Parts: sequence; structure tokens; C-alpha cells
Amino acid sequence: MKRKIAVLPGDGIGKEVAGGAVEILEAVAERFEHEFTFEYGQIGGAAIDATGQPLPDETIELCKSSDAILLGAVGGPKWDSQPTHLRPERGLLKIRKDLNLYANLRPISYFSSLSEASPLKQEIIEDVDFIIVRELTGGLYFGKPSERTIFEGKEAVVDTLFYQKEEMRRIIELSFEIASQRQKKVTSVDKANVLESSRLWRETAEEVAKNYPDVTLEHMLVDNAAMQLIRNPRQFDVVVTENMFGDILSDEASVLTGSLGMLSSASISVDGPSLFEPIHGSAPDIAGKNVANPLATILSAAYMLRLSFGMEKEAEAVEKAVHSVLDSGFRTIDIAGNNTESLSTEEMIAEVKAAL
Amino acid sequence: MKRKIAVLPGDGIGKEVAGGAVEILEAVAERFEHEFTFEYGQIGGAAIDATGQPLPDETIELCKSSDAILLGAVGGPKWDSQPTHLRPERGLLKIRKDLNLYANLRPISYFSSLSEASPLKQEIIEDVDFIIVRELTGGLYFGKPSERTIFEGKEAVVDTLFYQKEEMRRIIELSFEIASQRQKKVTSVDKANVLESSRLWRETAEEVAKNYPDVTLEHMLVDNAAMQLIRNPRQFDVVVTENMFGDILSDEASVLTGSLGMLSSASISVDGPSLFEPIHGSAPDIAGKNVANPLATILSAAYMLRLSFGMEKEAEAVEKAVHSVLDSGFRTIDIAGNNTESLSTEEMIAEVKAAL
Ligand SMILES: CC(C)[C@H](C(=O)O)[C@@H](O)C(=O)O
Ligand SMILES: CC(C)[C@H](C(=O)O)[C@@H](O)C(=O)O
Repeated sequence: MKRKIAVLPGDGIGKEVAGGAVEILEAVAERFEHEFTFEYGQIGGAAIDATGQPLPDETIELCKSSDAILLGAVGGPKWDSQPTHLRPERGLLKIRKDLNLYANLRPISYFSSLSEASPLKQEIIEDVDFIIVRELTGGLYFGKPSERTIFEGKEAVVDTLFYQKEEMRRIIELSFEIASQRQKKVTSVDKANVLESSRLWRETAEEVAKNYPDVTLEHMLVDNAAMQLIRNPRQFDVVVTENMFGDILSDEASVLTGSLGMLSSASISVDGPSLFEPIHGSAPDIAGKNVANPLATILSAAYMLRLSFGMEKEAEAVEKAVHSVLDSGFRTIDIAGNNTESLSTEEMIAEVKAAL
Repeated sequence: MKRKIAVLPGDGIGKEVAGGAVEILEAVAERFEHEFTFEYGQIGGAAIDATGQPLPDETIELCKSSDAILLGAVGGPKWDSQPTHLRPERGLLKIRKDLNLYANLRPISYFSSLSEASPLKQEIIEDVDFIIVRELTGGLYFGKPSERTIFEGKEAVVDTLFYQKEEMRRIIELSFEIASQRQKKVTSVDKANVLESSRLWRETAEEVAKNYPDVTLEHMLVDNAAMQLIRNPRQFDVVVTENMFGDILSDEASVLTGSLGMLSSASISVDGPSLFEPIHGSAPDIAGKNVANPLATILSAAYMLRLSFGMEKEAEAVEKAVHSVLDSGFRTIDIAGNNTESLSTEEMIAEVKAAL
């Protein structure tokens, strides 16, 4: 099969880790006789430096003409003093909105070879395997007004949590679709005891659930979910929630297993190419030093093979290669225990390629 | 000293645990020669059953005429199907607003005698000692509009995150005051890379910080804070944040040490009596069974002695009593390890009284 992949390395370690994923995709193409072409675009701080914009129009055009998008990471202290609309993160928010990337999927699973790295006790974290489905284009992130204002003669400020019911329905539906391929349980997280938006969310979840009689729906308040993720993360299969709650809970969840450098994510589009990226950030402190862990980005590429290209056996081949490398004891510095020597980024990429 | 305390037992185990705290306060009064009077009021489900309202006017009047308020717990499945304005939790939101309880303080500290109960590895949780200061009367919880609406002919919904700058200033100031009595570090949590309200929050924090040259101010994004609480909770001294972020993060923090049944909280009023309550809920499943852990409520009473009555040595006496009971190996069922016999609620209260 022929596929065109837009590669947006971004900032910091983004270049190194995206480069690794491209190498692995090339190896997959060779082994499975596909033809992947890669075109590069700018986003984030790198784009600001080059064009004055965190997401130039050419990048959007490139993405729209591609079959899938691979993103490295975005942001860094260099651009922290920029006005808001010229900050690297704006590039992320804009690409989500412009490409209709409505659903962010983050699988959280336990790597038995990395159990030492978890802050949680072994008996709590063992066999954890769930996925967080976060709404990505609505809610507080995009609602208007979002501005300074005057109230009774004094300074005040307002942000707006706005959702159309349809935006809720489509993401909840996706979570039921995913659950029906898994353990058949959806945990819908809201704050229905306080927010009107959460009450509509809960009603919508109930409506969607009617069409999936074999999937169990459970509601959980967001504050309780923040506790349950730590107390008993094994209870979850698919967790679905709105944008801001999803931001907080998915980051909380990402540190449970202790292998942040291993976690991939997919942002699914309503109608166009989807985007794949590691969960970790741009880690400016270690950028360019050839020590970043490329595995999260490589696993994001596997996710792309599966979800965007329907290449299940190719995806599995990459995942198996990563696991076998870990099982052989190879580690980058972020996941190396006290007694393990660590590989450079390039060495790790080479090991995965060899295992493939 | 003479002091009048409003006692609002509420629902579920609320009665049992509030009763325990009253017994201890009575013992304190006797030992230190104070005169405490207790008057009882209704809130939550109990109030709905008795008066049709989750927070009747008489309760508000009672609270306003008291020097401090002791709350048990509120809510239960019995009232889950009530319309929103008649739900027990509405009583909580209303009492916060009516009494100007603008600041919720939640100290999180490690009980060395309970280390087994923590889901986190010992080396991460050891010596943790911080306090979360949550804004309690603004933000998404109270902003208008909060309603269903129609957008482009279709169902939609809106909630509003509204703050006056002054509301931000007073809570941030309080957190600096608290930090100057502690380790002199404030971590201000926001989402300034997305929300306008967070940008005003951050500016306000910077302004307040100028008046506290000996306190260090650090900003942290809420998603990162959700990670840091698990990865390295020892880094925190005073964490201050707005209402919704505070709801999520303080519940997350409350399970780190594994001793939810031990954690107390204070809700400080701008201009009237403050309210003290355990962090745990009404636990309807164990209500009336004489097994609930009364220690969080007893520690909340100690907090009241300190903050509302300025009775430092009395507060310390209660805290010491609780610690010595734990050190002697006494446990209620929620914190009992595998090999420990557990005490009933009443037995635990009696032990604390004896230790006092
Ligand atoms: C950078 C920021 C705007 C972004 C978000 O909050 O969505 C990030 O935290 C994420 O989760 O992808
Ligand atoms: C019951 C609910 C309204 C309340 C809140 O969200 O504030 C509770 O979760 C709390 O934290 O006290």
C-alpha cells in the first residue's frame, strides 16, 4: 500500500524521537512491502522561529493532503515570554481545531519489564490496562467569551465551557465502539453534581449506552476518578471524559505505570487524517543530547499503522519489537533502573530496527 | 473561654463521626477549663427529609450565630434521583456561598504508623507534608449562565468560569500567609497556557508574591500538578488553586497517604465562622454500623481549636492523643492492616478520650 505521512518534529527532543519513528516506519515498509512517503512540516516553537506562526498554513495544507500525521513534541522555555497567540502550544490547539481532531486516545498499560519505575506499589499497578478517551475540540479550551471583563466596577475574568450535544455524542459513541473491542466497560467521568454541561453529558452517555447492550456504562465524578486512578486503576477499561477533565486525568494516569517515555497517543479526526504523538513533552533540558527515549513515538507509529492504515500485523510487529528490546534489558536513561546501563536514542532505535 | 459550636451531622456516617468529635471537644473543655456549647442543625439529605430543603434557613441562622461549625458528611443514594436543586450536595454549595467560606484548607501528611495503607511506594510517600488551599466560592461552580441552550438550531449547554480578581487575590494571599508559617513555598496551579482566567490568576499570584519576599512562588500547570502529586509529592509545601482544579487535585492528594479516614479540612470564612469537616464522604454502606473511622472528624475539631479559637495547646493535645492511639496499634477497619484487629467507632473515640 502507498501512504503519505506528514511528519511534524516540533521542538526539543521532538526531532530525535520523530526521526526514530520514521526509521521504524521505513523498516516496516521494506519488510511488508508498502510504500510510505514522508513530508516534513513545522509546528510550535520551530514554526514560530521560521515563520512567525505556531502553525503556518503550509503545515495545515500538508496535513490535509496526507494519510496520517506524526508529531514529535511542542514547546520550550525559549517561547515562554511570547504573547499567548504566538506560543508554541497554540499550534497544538489550532491543529486540533483545524483538522477536527475530536478524540484523543491514550492507552495506559503496564510494562512488566518496567515495574520498578512505577511510583505505585506493584500489587496496585500490575496488569493495569485501560484507555482514556478525551474530547479534544470543545469545552473550556475553545468556548467564548474567554476574556477580561469588569464586574461591579472591578477587574474580573470569564472563560466558557461550551458543548454541543452532538460533540458529546460522537466521542461517547467512539468510547463505546472501543469498549466493545475490549473489556466492554465504559466509565464516563463528569461533575454532574455541579455542572449543567456534565448533566447533559451524563444524559447523552445514557442514550448512547442503549445502542450497546453488551457494554456496561458506569458514571464517575471527576474528583472520585482522580482518586480511583491511584487506588484501583485495574477497575478501568475505557474512560471517556470532556476536554479539561481529560487533560488532567490522562496526565495523572500517564505516570501510574512509571513509563511516561513509553506512552503513545492518537488524536482521531472526524473526517480527515488522524494525528499520532508520544504523551511526553519536548524535554528541552535533554534535547539534542541523543538520550531521549524514542519508544513512545515508535509505539505511536505502531498505533498509526493500526488505526489509520488498518495494518494490524505491521502494528503488532513494531510492538513486539519494542517489547523484545525491553525484555532483553535495553533501556534509555529515563527508564533505566540503578543497575542497568542505558542506550542512546540512536542505539535504541537501532535495537528496535534489529528486532523488527 | 466560652465558645458556641454549630454541629451539622448530615447524612450517613456523619452522625457517628460528628458525635465523636463533640465528645472529644467536651473532654478538651473539661481539661482546659473552657465552656463549649453545641447546637445542632440540619443539612443535606437529613434536612431534605425533615424540611424539604438541603440547607434550611434555620441552619444558616444557627451557623451565623456560632463561633465555628462542625460538619459530618453529606449525601447518599437515597437522594440521587432528586432534581438538582433538591440534592444534598446543594446544601454544601449553599452553605459555602451563604457563609462566604472562600478557602478550603486540606493538610495532607504522612502518618508513619499507616505506611502500609498507601498505594504509593514508601520512598515516595515518606515525610510528605503539604497543604492544599482551594478557592471555594467562585469559578465554574457558581458562574452564570449555567444552562441548556440552542446553537445553530441544535442542543447545546454552557457553564461559566467566572472570577473577580479580588477573589483570586484573597485566596492567594491566604496561601502566602500559610506558607510563611511553614516551608515558605507556594505552588500556584493553573492552566495559563489555555485559560484567560488562569492568566489573571498567574498575574495576581505574581503581584501578591511581591509582598512576601521570603516566600518562593512557583507556577505549575494543572495537568503537570496531577502528575507531580504522584511522582514527587514531597516537593510541595502550600498548593493554591481555583475551585474546580482544587476539587480534583485535593481528592487526588487525599489518597496518596492511604489514610483518607484520617484527613481533616477547614473552610475559612471571609467574615464569619469557619467550617470544619472530614474529607471523606457519608459512606452510606457502613452508616449506623459503628465501624466508621472518627479520627478525621476529631482532627477537624483540633483544626477548629487552632484556627477558630486560637487554642494551640488544646489542638496539639488532641493531635497527640490521636497519634498515640495509632502508635499503640489501635485501628478502625478502614486503616487496619491484615494483622490488626479493628476497633468500633465508639471504642476508637474512647481510646482518644483516654489518651487525652
Ligand atoms: C499544551 C496544552 C495546550 C495541551 C492541552 O492542555 O491540551 C497539553 O497539555 C496536552 O494535554 O496535549
Ligand atoms: C459534593 C460536591 C459538590 C463537593 C465539591 O465538588 O465541592 C465535594 O466534592 C467536595 O469536594 O467538597
